[in-house]
Amino acid sequence: MGQAQVIDGKAFAAGLRARVAERVAKLKAEHGLQPGLAVVLVGDDPGSQIYVRSKGEQTLEAGMHSVTHRLPAETSEADLLDLVRALNADPAIHGILVQFPVPPHIRQSAVLEVLSPDKDVDGLTVANAGRLASGLPALSPCTPVGCMLLLRDALGELRGKRAVVVGRSNLVGKPIAQLLLQADCTVTIAHSRTVDLPAVCREADILVAAVGVPELVRGDWIRPGAAVIDVGMNRLPSRDPVKAAQGKTRVVGDVAFAECAEIAGWITPVPGGVGPMTVACLLQNTLTAALRLNGIAE
Amino acid sequence: MGQAQVIDGKAFAAGLRARVAERVAKLKAEHGLQPGLAVVLVGDDPGSQIYVRSKGEQTLEAGMHSVTHRLPAETSEADLLDLVRALNADPAIHGILVQFPVPPHIRQSAVLEVLSPDKDVDGLTVANAGRLASGLPALSPCTPVGCMLLLRDALGELRGKRAVVVGRSNLVGKPIAQLLLQADCTVTIAHSRTVDLPAVCREADILVAAVGVPELVRGDWIRPGAAVIDVGMNRLPSRDPVKAAQGKTRVVGDVAFAECAEIAGWITPVPGGVGPMTVACLLQNTLTAALRLNGIAE
Ligand SMILES: NC(=O)c1ccc[n+]([C@@H]2O[C@H](COP(=O)([O-])OP(=O)(O)OC[C@H]3O[C@@H](n4cnc5c(N)ncnc54)[C@H](OP(=O)(O)O)[C@@H]3O)[C@@H](O)[C@H]2O)c1
Ligand SMILES: NC(=O)c1ccc[n+]([C@@H]2O[C@H](COP(=O)([O-])OP(=O)(O)OC[C@H]3O[C@@H](n4cnc5c(N)ncnc54)[C@H](OP(=O)(O)O)[C@@H]3O)[C@@H](O)[C@H]2O)c1
Repeated sequence: MGQAQVIDGKAFAAGLRARVAERVAKLKAEHGLQPGLAVVLVGDDPGSQIYVRSKGEQTLEAGMHSVTHRLPAETSEADLLDLVRALNADPAIHGILVQFPVPPHIRQSAVLEVLSPDKDVDGLTVANAGRLASGLPALSPCTPVGCMLLLRDALGELRGKRAVVVGRSNLVGKPIAQLLLQADCTVTIAHSRTVDLPAVCREADILVAAVGVPELVRGDWIRPGAAVIDVGMNRLPSRDPVKAAQGKTRVVGDVAFAECAEIAGWITPVPGGVGPMTVACLLQNTLTAALRLNGIAE
Repeated sequence: MGQAQVIDGKAFAAGLRARVAERVAKLKAEHGLQPGLAVVLVGDDPGSQIYVRSKGEQTLEAGMHSVTHRLPAETSEADLLDLVRALNADPAIHGILVQFPVPPHIRQSAVLEVLSPDKDVDGLTVANAGRLASGLPALSPCTPVGCMLLLRDALGELRGKRAVVVGRSNLVGKPIAQLLLQADCTVTIAHSRTVDLPAVCREADILVAAVGVPELVRGDWIRPGAAVIDVGMNRLPSRDPVKAAQGKTRVVGDVAFAECAEIAGWITPVPGGVGPMTVACLLQNTLTAALRLNGIAE
C-alpha cells in the first residue's frame, strides 16, 4: 500500500503569484502598462465579502491596479449593467469580476451578456465558453485553469492519459473537461446520472471531482497511482461540538482524502489544494487580458 | 451471433422533412411567415455545387423560401462579408449557410465572425458553440443533431448510457459530445492521441465514429448490443477497376459495417445512415431560427 504525493496547491499558488508579479513589473517597466482588475460586489454576503477583500489584496500584492465596487443589495439591474459598461470602456481596467451570486432581482445572465468577453477574467461569458469549446484563445474559468497547472506540474505530459471529470457545471466540470481534451487526454464526463460511478472513476489516470458532495469519492474508486484533483469545497459543522454550536465550520472536499491517498499517486488536499489556485489564476487571467487588449505578445 | 438492426437514415430524414414541411405550412397559414434559407457558394467546386443544389431543392420542397448566391472564385473577402451582412439584415432570410471550404484568400473565421448567430443554421459560429456548451438555446451543427435524432428514435431514453465519441472536431465530434451530455449520457471523447482506442470503444453503449478513416472501427471494438453511429463519409476509388479508372468513387464510413453489424444492436449504414439527416436537420434549424427570430413558440 503506497502513499500518494500530496500536491501543495498553496505553495504552487504562491509561486504563480510571484511569477505574475514579476511579469507585471516587467510590463510596467517596458510598456508603461499596469494591469487593472475591478471587482464588483452587490450586497453584503459575509462569504463574498471575504473573497472580494482577499482578491483585492492579492491584486495589489501582484503590483496591479485594483478597484473594488461595493454596491448596496438593492442596486437595480440597470445600474449594475451601467457600471459594467463603464468598466468595459475604462482603459485602466483589463479584468472585470462581478462576484456571484448577485441578489435575486438581478439576472446573472444579463450581467454576463453585457460584460466584455475580453475583460471576462472569470471566463463565464458565453463568448469565452464558445472560444474554449472551439479551441480559440479564451479567458478560461480560473479554477479549471488552476487544476490544469497542478496536473502539469505533477505529471508533466498529459497526452493520452484517461481523464474522468465528475461534475459538468459550466463553471467547473465542463471547462476542465475542455482543457483536458486540449491537453490530448481521453476525457470522460460523469455526473449525477452516471451509472456505476465507482467503475467509471476506476478508469481514470486523472480523476477530477467537482461535485459538491462531501467525501463522495472513496478509496476503492481510485485506480492505483492515479492523480486525484479535488475541487470540492463543502462547509460542514466543526468537529468540535462547542465550536459547531458557535457556528464554526470546516471545509471538506469531494474526495475521502485519507482513503484515497492510500491508493492514488498524487492527490490534492482540501483545504490547500485547488482552492488557493483560483485567485492566483485570476491574477494570471488579468495579466493575459491586459496583454491581449494592448496587443502585446504573451 | 446476432445481427444489428440497421438504422434507415434515409427514411427517417424523409419523415423529418415531411414534418418540417407540415410545420412550415402551418406557420404560413397562422402567422403569414415563410422561413427562408440563403445558401452562399464561392467558386465552382463540383462537390459543393451538388450539395448546394440539393439543399436548394429540399428547401423549396419543404415550402420554404430559398435563395442561392453563386459567387465567382475570385470574389474578395470584403464582398463576401458584405453579402453576409446584407443577409443578416434581410427579414425574409432566417438561415444563412456559407458553403465551406471557401477559396484560400477568404478566411472562414472572418465569415463566421460576421454571420449573425441567430441565422447560423450550420451552428458554426463561436456564439453558437458557446450557447451549446453552456446549455443555452443554440443552433447546433446539423450532422450532430441528426445523430441524436437517430439515436433517440432507435433507443428511446439515453440517460445514463455510456457514449464514446471518436473524433473531436468543432463541426462534428465536439458538438455530438455536448448533445450526448445534455441527454444525460456519460460521455467519453476519444481522438488520435487516445491510447488503446479499441478498449475505449468497447466501453460504449453508444459509439459514434466521426474520424475520416475508412473502416477504422472493427467488429471486436464493439460492445455486444451497442448502438453504432457512423458519421464517416470517405471517398474511395470504385471497386470496379474500369469505373475506378474513369474516376468513379464509392463512399465508405469510419466503421467496418459487416463485421460490426454482427455484434452491434443498432448500426447506421454508409450511405443511407447519418448522411441524409444533415440536410433534413438544416431545414429544421431554419424553421427553428425563423420561429425564434419572430418570437413564436417552438
Ligand atoms: N476550489 C475552488 O475554488 C472552487 C471553485 C468553484 C467550485 N468549487 C467547489 O466545487 C464543487 C462543484 O462546484 P460546481 O459549481 O461545479 O457545482 P454544481 O454547479 O452544483 O455542479 C455539481 C455537479 O456535480 C454533479 N453531481 C451532483 N451530485 C452527484 C453525485 N452524487 N454523483 C455524481 N455527480 C454528481 C452534478 O450533476 P448533474 O449535472 O447531473 O446535476 C453537477 O454536474 C463544489 O463543492 C464547489 O464548492 C470550488
Ligand atoms: N454525414 C455527414 O453529413 C458528415 C458531415 C461532416 C463530416 N462527415 C464525415 O465525418 C468524418 C469526420 O469529419 P470531421 O469534419 O470531424 O473530420 P476532422 O476535422 O478531420 O476530425 C477528425 C477527428 O478524428 C480524429 N482522428 C483521426 N484519425 C484518428 C485515428 N486513427 N484514431 C482516432 N481518432 C482519429 C482526429 O483526432 P485529432 O483531433 O487528435 O487530430 C479528429 O479529432 C469524415 O469522414 C467526414 O467526411 C460527415
